[in-house]
Amino acid sequence: MSNISLTAAENLQQIRENKPLIHNITNFVVMNYTANVLLATGASPVMAHAQNEVEEMVAFAGSLVLNIGTLSESWVSSMLMASQRANTLKTPIILDPVGSGATAFRTASAKRIIAEAKVSVIRGNASEILSLGSEQSNTRGVDTSQSVSDAAQTASLLARELDTILAITGPTDLVTDGRRVFNVDNGHPLMPYVTGTGCSATAVVGAFAAVDRDYLRAATTALAFFGLAGEMAGKAATGPGSFMIHLLDALYNMSPEQLEKGCRIKESSATRS
Amino acid sequence: MSNISLTAAENLQQIRENKPLIHNITNFVVMNYTANVLLATGASPVMAHAQNEVEEMVAFAGSLVLNIGTLSESWVSSMLMASQRANTLKTPIILDPVGSGATAFRTASAKRIIAEAKVSVIRGNASEILSLGSEQSNTRGVDTSQSVSDAAQTASLLARELDTILAITGPTDLVTDGRRVFNVDNGHPLMPYVTGTGCSATAVVGAFAAVDRDYLRAATTALAFFGLAGEMAGKAATGPGSFMIHLLDALYNMSPEQLEKGCRIKESSATRS
Amino acid sequence: MSNISLTAAENLQQIRENKPLIHNITNFVVMNYTANVLLATGASPVMAHAQNEVEEMVAFAGSLVLNIGTLSESWVSSMLMASQRANTLKTPIILDPVGSGATAFRTASAKRIIAEAKVSVIRGNASEILSLGSEQSNTRGVDTSQSVSDAAQTASLLARELDTILAITGPTDLVTDGRRVFNVDNGHPLMPYVTGTGCSATAVVGAFAAVDRDYLRAATTALAFFGLAGEMAGKAATGPGSFMIHLLDALYNMSPEQLEKGCRIKESSATRS
Repeated sequence: MSNISLTAAENLQQIRENKPLIHNITNFVVMNYTANVLLATGASPVMAHAQNEVEEMVAFAGSLVLNIGTLSESWVSSMLMASQRANTLKTPIILDPVGSGATAFRTASAKRIIAEAKVSVIRGNASEILSLGSEQSNTRGVDTSQSVSDAAQTASLLARELDTILAITGPTDLVTDGRRVFNVDNGHPLMPYVTGTGCSATAVVGAFAAVDRDYLRAATTALAFFGLAGEMAGKAATGPGSFMIHLLDALYNMSPEQLEKGCRIKESSATRS
Repeated sequence: MSNISLTAAENLQQIRENKPLIHNITNFVVMNYTANVLLATGASPVMAHAQNEVEEMVAFAGSLVLNIGTLSESWVSSMLMASQRANTLKTPIILDPVGSGATAFRTASAKRIIAEAKVSVIRGNASEILSLGSEQSNTRGVDTSQSVSDAAQTASLLARELDTILAITGPTDLVTDGRRVFNVDNGHPLMPYVTGTGCSATAVVGAFAAVDRDYLRAATTALAFFGLAGEMAGKAATGPGSFMIHLLDALYNMSPEQLEKGCRIKESSATRS
Repeated sequence: MSNISLTAAENLQQIRENKPLIHNITNFVVMNYTANVLLATGASPVMAHAQNEVEEMVAFAGSLVLNIGTLSESWVSSMLMASQRANTLKTPIILDPVGSGATAFRTASAKRIIAEAKVSVIRGNASEILSLGSEQSNTRGVDTSQSVSDAAQTASLLARELDTILAITGPTDLVTDGRRVFNVDNGHPLMPYVTGTGCSATAVVGAFAAVDRDYLRAATTALAFFGLAGEMAGKAATGPGSFMIHLLDALYNMSPEQLEKGCRIKESSATRS
């Protein structure tokens, strides 16, 4: 067993024991499923977006998860208020830039959050993550035509530019702080057929970050946990509906030992320019 | 069979026959599950929060269910508008003070609703309910270290202070109007692992209150019905995902006779100071 | 096999191949389920309501689906903005007038959208659809006491008055452009016990309209597809919870060939006055 597999198991154990409160300011589509994923994992979700209470709420939380789906102006303001307080308290912020790159409002909002707050981890798909970069890095596009080591290079540069950890999910996930690069091979092809699996993965990163202040490690082990639960769910599922339900059961039933044995994390051999 | 068991069965029968419209002003996280729980029970849910229509909508409803999760200012205003109309029409109001006690905004909003409207039943967990009291009663905290009769005493005092019925859910539920105290022993340990089970229980209280104007009895029998469905679901479930689905099936399939036989309601022997 | 059955199969095949983006401005209760239904069908859902981005988002979409449940003023404005752009781009608009007829705000909002934008298809139940007509047609009420040919007459007149296609769902669905009338007999009695099945059917009409610019045909075949999935789900379900999950699996697993064989569409013999 590699060291990181053991860490994954220990992190899961910590979540189950401490039930960290995860404060989510997230989109309407995925609120319910995200809360259920966090509960099944062993964490305590709370959703709160009013400017009257976000600063107070985030003070109780082990992490703050921001998600810009179904965004509107007042929610951006709430996210910024909560972020300032989280930064003051050194509470990790996890950002899911849903749809960044698709509309100017989403891209600008994601960039504004990154500019005005210290974000610990950004979790998105390749096109969302790349939309956050300056034009130069953007044109280097991580896509399926790139080799794995090229993708790692591009992501590393962007992580350093943004001074954060990037968790890019896809058939193989890639997590980097700009120096080290981890690949996670857990997951299941039905995941993209259930809305909110990406957003829920981000929330699970929040749960792991609440118990492991090495956020590169937290994000990597969280994605392995979520992906492995997907594999377990996929064995029992007969379509995306049953998959989504089995996924909750798998998150709940997975033991730290199963995670240690089942997680497939590799440190990438990408040159670290 | 005790009298209250028979009443439970009759109330369920009434809901199935009359399909009362339940007007919910509730939080984003649980809207979908709450609507599905009400449909499975046999009621007709409607969710509407715009100030342009809440007064008109509540006039069609058998009860008004207010839930302060994911709250914001304009929703509080809508709740107050709908409440005034409900009070005029003598339509019961059921309040779920989600997160009251956690932030000042939630506590103040719950207290404001209670102050400005006549609320028939408040359903919450112990800490939420206790946050609604004046400081004196608050410090008497119903918690797991209290004996059952102490908890009943505290709840009775608070129910009289607030002039409403309190339905405090937990491993054993407690329902009181300040004079009589009922305990409901139905339920399942997976319930807290599904988001919105508490909120849905509140909505089911709304459905029962729409057909039984003895709200103490309505709340008690509603919690027994919901808890018994949880027990049935728990037998088939392999985790919180499948539990949440089996719960809907159990609510739909339960016959009044099954409810009469399966509900475990006891009138408490608490001294009635 | 009739021509329309073959078209149904071809439309489904087109959706699976092209994964059209469906832009939904829809209600909070059904957002999650609607997104999952569209994903299971093979389309790509996006939910976006901010005035900052709806015009930009709809430009990427194969159709725009508007749903007036849990409505508020600012959402109506967003719907109108998105509609203007959709009309300019000749992108089909599908309207679900949830609760029209129940409150003045809903009825007025639905009528305003129809007046200010060219809507391709309106999908609702009989009372919702009839609330959209002028008083004369309204009083002719399509209800269960009407004969099928009377209902077809009433719907045809209203479709011509509103200059749109009407898709009225119920035990038998009726789709008309005011000249031709199709009846769809697919469906299952558990459908009304799951919230958002109607709204999801509307979104599926959006997916079919994105690949078939004969919107009368698109709406008819979409309802047959959705109803047939309901029949498949009903065989495996033990209540509304499991039905809702099996429905997603059935939408995902249904082959174009199964749809061609299983769809039950008839052109009505209603006199075409």
